[in-house]
Amino acid sequence: MTVSEYIFDFLQKKGCDTVYMVSGSSAMWLTDALRRNEALKAVCCHHEQAAAMAADCYGRTRGVPGICLATIGPGATNAITGAAGAFVDSSPMFVLTGQANSRLIRYEMDTGIRQHGTQSLNLEPIVSPMVKYFACVLEPGDIRRVMEQAWHEAMDGRKGPVWIDVPVDVQNKPVPDEMEGFHAPGQAPECMDLSAAAQGLARAEKPLILAGGGVRGAGAAALLARLCQTLQIPVATSRGGIDVIASDSPYFVGRPGSYGDRASHFAIQQCDYLLILGSRLSISTTGYYPQRFGQNAYKVMVDIDQKELDKPGVPVDWKISMDAGAFLERLLGCCAGLEPADHSPWLSHCREMRRQYPNVLPGYAQERPLNSYHVSRLLSRCASADCDIVVDTGSVCNIVSQSWELKEGQRYLISGGLSAMGFWAGAIGAVREGRQVLALSGDGSVQMNVQEFATLRYNRLPVKLFVFQNSGYMLIRHNQHNYMNDRFLGVGPDSGLETPDFCKVAAAYGLDSCELTADDDLESAFQEILAKDGPFVCQLRVQEFGEIAPKIASRVMPDGSLKAAEFDDLYPFL
Amino acid sequence: MTVSEYIFDFLQKKGCDTVYMVSGSSAMWLTDALRRNEALKAVCCHHEQAAAMAADCYGRTRGVPGICLATIGPGATNAITGAAGAFVDSSPMFVLTGQANSRLIRYEMDTGIRQHGTQSLNLEPIVSPMVKYFACVLEPGDIRRVMEQAWHEAMDGRKGPVWIDVPVDVQNKPVPDEMEGFHAPGQAPECMDLSAAAQGLARAEKPLILAGGGVRGAGAAALLARLCQTLQIPVATSRGGIDVIASDSPYFVGRPGSYGDRASHFAIQQCDYLLILGSRLSISTTGYYPQRFGQNAYKVMVDIDQKELDKPGVPVDWKISMDAGAFLERLLGCCAGLEPADHSPWLSHCREMRRQYPNVLPGYAQERPLNSYHVSRLLSRCASADCDIVVDTGSVCNIVSQSWELKEGQRYLISGGLSAMGFWAGAIGAVREGRQVLALSGDGSVQMNVQEFATLRYNRLPVKLFVFQNSGYMLIRHNQHNYMNDRFLGVGPDSGLETPDFCKVAAAYGLDSCELTADDDLESAFQEILAKDGPFVCQLRVQEFGEIAPKIASRVMPDGSLKAAEFDDLYPFL
Repeated sequence: MTVSEYIFDFLQKKGCDTVYMVSGSSAMWLTDALRRNEALKAVCCHHEQAAAMAADCYGRTRGVPGICLATIGPGATNAITGAAGAFVDSSPMFVLTGQANSRLIRYEMDTGIRQHGTQSLNLEPIVSPMVKYFACVLEPGDIRRVMEQAWHEAMDGRKGPVWIDVPVDVQNKPVPDEMEGFHAPGQAPECMDLSAAAQGLARAEKPLILAGGGVRGAGAAALLARLCQTLQIPVATSRGGIDVIASDSPYFVGRPGSYGDRASHFAIQQCDYLLILGSRLSISTTGYYPQRFGQNAYKVMVDIDQKELDKPGVPVDWKISMDAGAFLERLLGCCAGLEPADHSPWLSHCREMRRQYPNVLPGYAQERPLNSYHVSRLLSRCASADCDIVVDTGSVCNIVSQSWELKEGQRYLISGGLSAMGFWAGAIGAVREGRQVLALSGDGSVQMNVQEFATLRYNRLPVKLFVFQNSGYMLIRHNQHNYMNDRFLGVGPDSGLETPDFCKVAAAYGLDSCELTADDDLESAFQEILAKDGPFVCQLRVQEFGEIAPKIASRVMPDGSLKAAEFDDLYPFL
Repeated sequence: MTVSEYIFDFLQKKGCDTVYMVSGSSAMWLTDALRRNEALKAVCCHHEQAAAMAADCYGRTRGVPGICLATIGPGATNAITGAAGAFVDSSPMFVLTGQANSRLIRYEMDTGIRQHGTQSLNLEPIVSPMVKYFACVLEPGDIRRVMEQAWHEAMDGRKGPVWIDVPVDVQNKPVPDEMEGFHAPGQAPECMDLSAAAQGLARAEKPLILAGGGVRGAGAAALLARLCQTLQIPVATSRGGIDVIASDSPYFVGRPGSYGDRASHFAIQQCDYLLILGSRLSISTTGYYPQRFGQNAYKVMVDIDQKELDKPGVPVDWKISMDAGAFLERLLGCCAGLEPADHSPWLSHCREMRRQYPNVLPGYAQERPLNSYHVSRLLSRCASADCDIVVDTGSVCNIVSQSWELKEGQRYLISGGLSAMGFWAGAIGAVREGRQVLALSGDGSVQMNVQEFATLRYNRLPVKLFVFQNSGYMLIRHNQHNYMNDRFLGVGPDSGLETPDFCKVAAAYGLDSCELTADDDLESAFQEILAKDGPFVCQLRVQEFGEIAPKIASRVMPDGSLKAAEFDDLYPFL
């Protein structure tokens, strides 16, 4: 068995079934081993950026890491944005790259010469900061330990990407019969008593849970649902945790953040006990005055990453370093026999706030050109529970996250921490048997991975791409309007940047498409699109300068700095 | 004056006139300062990868660095491939990126937390290995020193990219009236006596110069021409130095390398004095047995980078650490009064070999579908001297570099060391007043930056893109044919990858285009295309599996390793 064969054999036995790749000479033996592995499917992308994003979305939607295979040098650097995104969003992923001959890359490592072999870059210093584990495999006999440790790192604790770089001469070398394995450090079993947390939630008058990406996945989300029901507690979700609770759940309050909703912001400021579960409390969740976030509440924060608990900002009363799923399980065990206080007035109040302060206003449906909030809401109502949603970065991410009514079972995938444009192409990896994927993107972001239209077409992927065509970069257009006195640059046709008609681009790539405007019957058009097999591109002619609200507004101070409004004082001001 | 204003004011005063950019919120004040700087032009690209490659090509064709402006996080990581390419190819370049608030990025730096501010990544460890200088500007008062040092690093010695990262709150801060500058370390004046080299070249029977990227640029190339004439010495060029001598020069022998030509390989093995000038002697230049490269010659190597001189491989007799231009000037000074040996038999012999062993065989013109060598040669004959050529990576780079007849004044730009696919988009930055740019690319590489069709269109750039449509990745197809028994994966429509019809894609982006096949009168079609204003896409239906030759062939040994043929024993074997 060669090193390359070992790698794919290992991954396949662990349950991985697909590899997202771009071929290249320096990954030749890796590619061939993949080609010969009958249990693995290869999906060939047209840029490593997309292959990495696809692997990221695969890792988020399965119990195993996604795999990205790329070649040396530029193949590797092209995959960096995707790996960095997986890192900050805690998504398990293997990046496999071909490398120059081991003699050449050793020399690069030893001397710091700019380059020795053609195309090669010494990747270790470059990619190590954005992966949990990096190894350049210089000895065939190391491959077992490397793969075992890489798997452990990708999947254990806070998940994330790992990167295995294999010199071309090592790829085809036989592995020894006997190889050292990796021994994961033993972990002391968790024995923290959580009964105080159970009692605190039960006894509080206005308890609230803020759930984030750490609750992602069927297991933890189901435990969360049980906790809500057991103790009758409402839930708000950060961007990373949008899909942990259905929008029609009686416990769902809303999604706080810079572009959030009033109900969840009020609930956070009114609650008296706040359980922060698997959310890192980024500024885009807490607003700009984290010290006043949930200021009336006793705050418990549960996070698997001690660094997130140590972070300054929100003053947390009790920090618990633990996996959110394990915490929920343990906590539920402490709930038996508890007599929770009557939370129904609080729950009703939260629901009432949600009803009173909708993000999608009734008048939006009549606006011309199309209002993006209206479009997104309507599409969410048309989408079935057996589809997953990939939302790209930019105004579309804010709008859709503020308006999407999530059905139970739907996964909602965004480039959260990194917020990389072009993330729609992650849809390639989100595709699962018997389900379809809706990808929602702005025209500027579609451009960043437009070459992947070819991948959708070739593989007949059941991806419906909805392009919010707002003629450029709408979020930056707002930014330049708000802070630069309308000195626009690089945001639209009047300022240096024009995106194409994506129906024409779709046609050029052999994809079916349609354009929808305010003149169309959107609902029946959406139903028709969603009933189709295979890929489809739907271009929505939306407002080019549509308001994105509610939001935490900022203004420029005399010294040039920006001052933001308070968390519960969203624009438009009440 | 704010930090952002200072940056662009500095660059503009140094002679830069264009910035290649993608806008983003975290670069908002940088963008606005650029917008308000009347001496600078902004070209908005649709992906930072292309913006960086455009800046690279700008830096190669002007006396000043190219500038790429990108935003935080994914904007920065998207620019990495372009920066790495500029680094290994010694191209001066400024990458300017927006960064998170300085408080947040400081915290990331201090703690190693995955991320603090949204979108932010601590870039220093990631990009430092591929730039000559990196600074994250945390204090406004540092900006003068940072810019002066960055400029020095980009332009001094072996050129390369520098990277300035500016937190969003610092971007708009005023700079102090008084700021420390940067003091470049004093350099002892070069006083090496080169008369031995002059005498060696003059007295040798069969002297040869191998010129590389270090001779790039009008100044050094003119000195090289004078040296050839003065001492009557033939010149071979590495890939990086293709444009330092016109193909019709009586001193031009050829372009050695893995995909080279017989004349230059024979000349290198026959010469008795080899002056290696600004070429790092990469394996793709020397072949796989560097110890036998120029084995009959006394070898002098001149390189500005001591690390290149220290590199093992070719046994060099005299290593001179010096800029190639300065060396040539000094050397010419030593030639006065020298009586060179009669080199005319050797020169005639070199020219005769060149005549005897052409790369482009007469029969190629009749082949159907089109033979890429024929196409490239013909196009080079149609191209005027006042155009520059950008050649993308892959089989096209090999084919065009083996067949292009370079006219005096033409610049020939490739992604040499990194060999990044998608480099055709660098053509955006190669555009100069009164000249046009011919970009030659394969279909697989066009895909890697296809979004830039929008940039060509919007800016009406005089770029003629010639797409060698060979249905995928031809170089990898050969590789899988030669070494994998035709187990194809990810190289064409039969193996997981299909590229579009680029005439259709061009039309979708509003670009004029045409397709040429073996049925067309190529010469008049080329002349028509080259006479057009503005951008144009020409898709050439070439052979999908056309032979790439001559080349240094390799075969797989029983132990799985590859064994290459000798440098002067090119395939097809004589």
